[in-house]
Amino acid sequence: MDDLRRYAADLHAVELDVTSQESADAAIAHILAAHGRLDAVVHNAGHMTTGPTEDFTPDQLADLYDINVLGTQRVNRAALPHLRAQGAGLLVWLSSSSTRGGCPPFVGPCFTAKATMDALAASYATEVLRFGIDSAIVVPGAFTSGTNHFLHASAPADTDRAAAYDERYGALLAGPDKRLAALIPLDADAAQVADAVVRLLAMPAGTRPLRTHIDPSRAGNEVVSAVADRVRADFFRRVGLDDLLTAGSSL
Amino acid sequence: MDDLRRYAADLHAVELDVTSQESADAAIAHILAAHGRLDAVVHNAGHMTTGPTEDFTPDQLADLYDINVLGTQRVNRAALPHLRAQGAGLLVWLSSSSTRGGCPPFVGPCFTAKATMDALAASYATEVLRFGIDSAIVVPGAFTSGTNHFLHASAPADTDRAAAYDERYGALLAGPDKRLAALIPLDADAAQVADAVVRLLAMPAGTRPLRTHIDPSRAGNEVVSAVADRVRADFFRRVGLDDLLTAGSSL
Repeated sequence: MDDLRRYAADLHAVELDVTSQESADAAIAHILAAHGRLDAVVHNAGHMTTGPTEDFTPDQLADLYDINVLGTQRVNRAALPHLRAQGAGLLVWLSSSSTRGGCPPFVGPCFTAKATMDALAASYATEVLRFGIDSAIVVPGAFTSGTNHFLHASAPADTDRAAAYDERYGALLAGPDKRLAALIPLDADAAQVADAVVRLLAMPAGTRPLRTHIDPSRAGNEVVSAVADRVRADFFRRVGLDDLLTAGSSL
Repeated sequence: MDDLRRYAADLHAVELDVTSQESADAAIAHILAAHGRLDAVVHNAGHMTTGPTEDFTPDQLADLYDINVLGTQRVNRAALPHLRAQGAGLLVWLSSSSTRGGCPPFVGPCFTAKATMDALAASYATEVLRFGIDSAIVVPGAFTSGTNHFLHASAPADTDRAAAYDERYGALLAGPDKRLAALIPLDADAAQVADAVVRLLAMPAGTRPLRTHIDPSRAGNEVVSAVADRVRADFFRRVGLDDLLTAGSSL
């Protein structure tokens, strides 16, 4: 907070547990009571996993889904009635470059949850647009420093199968992040992602790009998005829904 | 079953509830006891939804995730120990063209679950390959006839917000499938998807394409996959994991 106060003249933290609808509702109500309006929601909560996908129990996947995906649904259900009533607002979603192109093995549940959230963002984008609400998907590459993402990653609960995977994939299991780190320039700074969010917040409504890529590893996800978003735009035109596209819907 | 028996000389149905680990374990154990081996798993279970994404409760999304995604995890956890011990096998995943490119609004939870399953399939593909297990992702377009997918779709549980969405999106909410149907040739037959699965099953191990598209509406998803899968392959080469690619990993 002290660090952040150096940059923001008027910064207030509000407690919000994304695994609780009551907490999400209370946080949004608090902001509205204090400020009379809500301009933007930034979906940034997310938890990392590493390990063989098979070794994660369904309960572990459900817990990860609860934080990384249902969390966004709870916050949206708390915030969107107000944004819709205002006829203005912005949803920012922190996705991942893993959703479009390359991603290493043994980060399955986490990358799967990011793909889920990215798809949810794309659906919401069209469903809130006619209420005057913008959407922006920020797509960071792998930043192996500057966050505690890898440090706090969860491991599989079922360790009975680990020996079989170790035998075939040992070196890779020991550190998927080390191989990624080799791709990433030493000056890659996770703050670039926060800067992108700030830039998006400052842009006038209707002018924001649907996707903003921040990927120092140059994994090529911009290339996939450029194609995917044009195909998506083409689809909307074919079904007569041109009005659900914005100036920034595709490159 | 009678219909199917005309095509298969030796067809046996086994009950399997994908929402129960016990049921998945029992089904796989039954097959192994009766036949001594298991050659392939086809992940086809999935449930459809239509309606504003905001109006689905987190519990509804969790239930859909349980069927469409955790179901595949339960079946994989039952089947993979045997496929890994065999050093051979095939995972077939029924994805959706909505995961790569165009998808209409108001089918959010369903398309999100398909994107989730598609990402899970891509992670599993690399993690089981060194055990000799192939993966094939089948990507059907929208088939508005030949299945009960749209007929059995779930609606949002929260109807309090429906009026606001009706006001802005009324015609679209009344029938997202009608607009899609206009794109689909009258002779589009969902059996083409089953035929693709049969072809994949018959192919020799190691030769199968990672993705097989069956999309009569030509929504352009093949174009996105061609780019995405090449970017994915390029990523694996850059991190020194060329061996996790197969002849069919990309076009």
